[in-house]
Amino acid sequence: MSKNIIVIGSGAAGMTAASEAKRVDPSANVTVITDDEYIAYSPCVIPWAIEGEAKWEDIVMHDADYYAKERDISVLIKTKVESVSDADRKVITSDGKEFTYDSLIIATGSTVFVPPIEGKDQEGVFQVKTVNDGKSIQAALADTKRIVIGGAGVIGLELALGLVRLGKDVTIIEMMPQVIPRIADADMAAPIQKYLEDCGVKFVMNAPISKVCGTGKVTGVIAGKGDDAKEYPCEMVIFATGVRANLTIPKMLELDIGQLGAVITAPTMQAYKRGRLVNNIFLAGDVVQCQSAITSGATMSQLGSTAVKQGLVAGKNAAGGSAVFGPVASPWVSAVGELQIAGTGMSQGLASWYGLKIVEGKAQGLTRARYFPGGKPLTVKVIADAVSHRIIGAQIVSQEDVTGRINWLTSAIIDGSTAEDFIVRAENAYCPPTNQVRDVVLAAVDDLITKL
Amino acid sequence: MSKNIIVIGSGAAGMTAASEAKRVDPSANVTVITDDEYIAYSPCVIPWAIEGEAKWEDIVMHDADYYAKERDISVLIKTKVESVSDADRKVITSDGKEFTYDSLIIATGSTVFVPPIEGKDQEGVFQVKTVNDGKSIQAALADTKRIVIGGAGVIGLELALGLVRLGKDVTIIEMMPQVIPRIADADMAAPIQKYLEDCGVKFVMNAPISKVCGTGKVTGVIAGKGDDAKEYPCEMVIFATGVRANLTIPKMLELDIGQLGAVITAPTMQAYKRGRLVNNIFLAGDVVQCQSAITSGATMSQLGSTAVKQGLVAGKNAAGGSAVFGPVASPWVSAVGELQIAGTGMSQGLASWYGLKIVEGKAQGLTRARYFPGGKPLTVKVIADAVSHRIIGAQIVSQEDVTGRINWLTSAIIDGSTAEDFIVRAENAYCPPTNQVRDVVLAAVDDLITKL
Repeated sequence: MSKNIIVIGSGAAGMTAASEAKRVDPSANVTVITDDEYIAYSPCVIPWAIEGEAKWEDIVMHDADYYAKERDISVLIKTKVESVSDADRKVITSDGKEFTYDSLIIATGSTVFVPPIEGKDQEGVFQVKTVNDGKSIQAALADTKRIVIGGAGVIGLELALGLVRLGKDVTIIEMMPQVIPRIADADMAAPIQKYLEDCGVKFVMNAPISKVCGTGKVTGVIAGKGDDAKEYPCEMVIFATGVRANLTIPKMLELDIGQLGAVITAPTMQAYKRGRLVNNIFLAGDVVQCQSAITSGATMSQLGSTAVKQGLVAGKNAAGGSAVFGPVASPWVSAVGELQIAGTGMSQGLASWYGLKIVEGKAQGLTRARYFPGGKPLTVKVIADAVSHRIIGAQIVSQEDVTGRINWLTSAIIDGSTAEDFIVRAENAYCPPTNQVRDVVLAAVDDLITKL
Repeated sequence: MSKNIIVIGSGAAGMTAASEAKRVDPSANVTVITDDEYIAYSPCVIPWAIEGEAKWEDIVMHDADYYAKERDISVLIKTKVESVSDADRKVITSDGKEFTYDSLIIATGSTVFVPPIEGKDQEGVFQVKTVNDGKSIQAALADTKRIVIGGAGVIGLELALGLVRLGKDVTIIEMMPQVIPRIADADMAAPIQKYLEDCGVKFVMNAPISKVCGTGKVTGVIAGKGDDAKEYPCEMVIFATGVRANLTIPKMLELDIGQLGAVITAPTMQAYKRGRLVNNIFLAGDVVQCQSAITSGATMSQLGSTAVKQGLVAGKNAAGGSAVFGPVASPWVSAVGELQIAGTGMSQGLASWYGLKIVEGKAQGLTRARYFPGGKPLTVKVIADAVSHRIIGAQIVSQEDVTGRINWLTSAIIDGSTAEDFIVRAENAYCPPTNQVRDVVLAAVDDLITKL
């Protein structure tokens, strides 16, 4: 008899898991249940879609019809899950339909964390997570001159640039003293802030937002510490303050939740319940916490690329295949106008959270040979653990060719390479129009070794 | 007393070794002896310098004066080494000067291998190795309409494009059936040939050159097998037929030469003499053969990036420091107009030379998210050993962001990662304007695994 595989959630994790499950077991009945209207899109692109650089109709790659016809996967959109029972393997939706599963994949993702402050539920307050969030912002722009973005993470920065390009007066308000505070170091993040300032984005740093002003409609926010607190008038507030795992379904099933507020899984992406592996429940995406590749302990990796990787593992295992998900260094990259910033593994801030003592190396160079026209400045920073000498983090700022380099350094982190070993083993390709004869990545590790 | 360190050769290996030796032991007397006129430049850039895209005055980064004043390194240009004696640690130059060394670094590089055919020494026959080679070609262009390039390796291809852009009639004649025959596979090399054909470069494949015609001045070449042999009229022939190690000095010293026609070294870049380590003689660059990172046995890695890496090791050890040079996968990249092609480790041809049975995976995608404007096509091929499942080679063709990806795959080869393990461990950064959510590198390995 055909296996029933139910996937809850239609983001990168859910749709990948559904497709992979169907690929592994073509006879399976695969059903995706989602409360979203649009499926199979990348929330990361929403800043560019708001600006108009990418088109809404392009970014949603497939609709439910496509999945039905092309992949024989049933997708129920705008459908909420009312209850799930592990005992009788049933999912009941809010419209009263009942589904029985042999394998359940939970990919319920995350929700923007909006701080619990006064006035946050007024007209004119937005977040950036779904296509509908983005379209709502876009629709409200005509009546908006001044916009406050709460949070200077990469989504906030990308969005700010798009909005100033549309002629808006944009202020980013951040509670920490630097942009991209959790995953980038101050010295690497500074050129990004400078670039955005030159583009016209205003920054208010060290300033937690304590209130959204207005009587039903936003008129401003109050931000700043103690006597520095003041009002920043605006007609729109967008919270880009990070996300939290959606735990409603995992809690219904009493799955084990970890210290970081997300679901604990086995390497197979299977759930645990009171410490015991649950055979037929799998998870993927923002809803789970991961094992750090660097040190013992859990970490969060709420990235689209992680979601896809986990979706492949969950989907394959749910369909009777066999795969495992490894520990993560969580490489990321952001494009802010002409600049790209990428990072992997530990930043100073993350290392400090884990109590690690670090040593840093840094090098500056170009994306082409020094004498070759058109090279862009390239800065690479590498972080090692002071005790083991292992490479545990890296960050790169340039205008091109950043992603491949950060993936390369990610593999060094995951392989547990020491800085000294990396220098013996790593090689770089060379051609004057594409890079320097000794890549800046190697030069940064050379510098690091002099400090160990 | 200060140590005397003598370096023979002023290319990437020699100048890097000299600078590193001086850095490690600032009290050392470091002397570089070279028969070249220009020092410290990258021969790889000569195709672009001939075209005028890079300037001769820029590509020579430093002259002897600079090294004397800024680094306290003495560089004797246009100076030939007449003899070297290990017994009394003496180098005698052809102008009769005598130098005593405590450590000797041999970085004599390589020479273009011109096939021993009739007519090869006439006016109008060139090679592309030194700045003076390049300047000679440039000076002769005014009187030249038709140019034959012997050899479709990356230098030949890069040069051909530059010359058609200057309005010349350019024909590449290659004895093998594909371009970049040794290190690229036919399917990956084909788009490069097609691109060059579209730019106006003509190709004659499967055609060894058997004669350069002319009576003192080139009038054509005869190429082709058997009855296919015919004359290709031209006023200039440029041999880009690969290089051979310069062994004159190593042979004077009776150093051990390997099966590939280059000097054998220890991981410290020290020479051997009848199987015994020579304590005070080091080598670096095109003159040595390397250990393959993939399989037991020697390999050649006559690349600028390898030369610099070996120069650092040789220089450091010669000055009393401690470093080793690891086995190589020899990543390379070439820019041919808008296209970039890169490779690492084994091609089909190299794998076959080592007797390895291989399995291939391939994926095509884009350098940006599918829906994001401006993405360039990106093709990645990955080769695994059929027995061990280890990744042993990769090739990439795109228009951007090729180098970082090939370095990333190089680290997988050097770390001995199996394809299955790579998929568990590798992670990629993601942002719609810079790459796909699942990098094409991972997609290629996914494809490979289905075939194992």
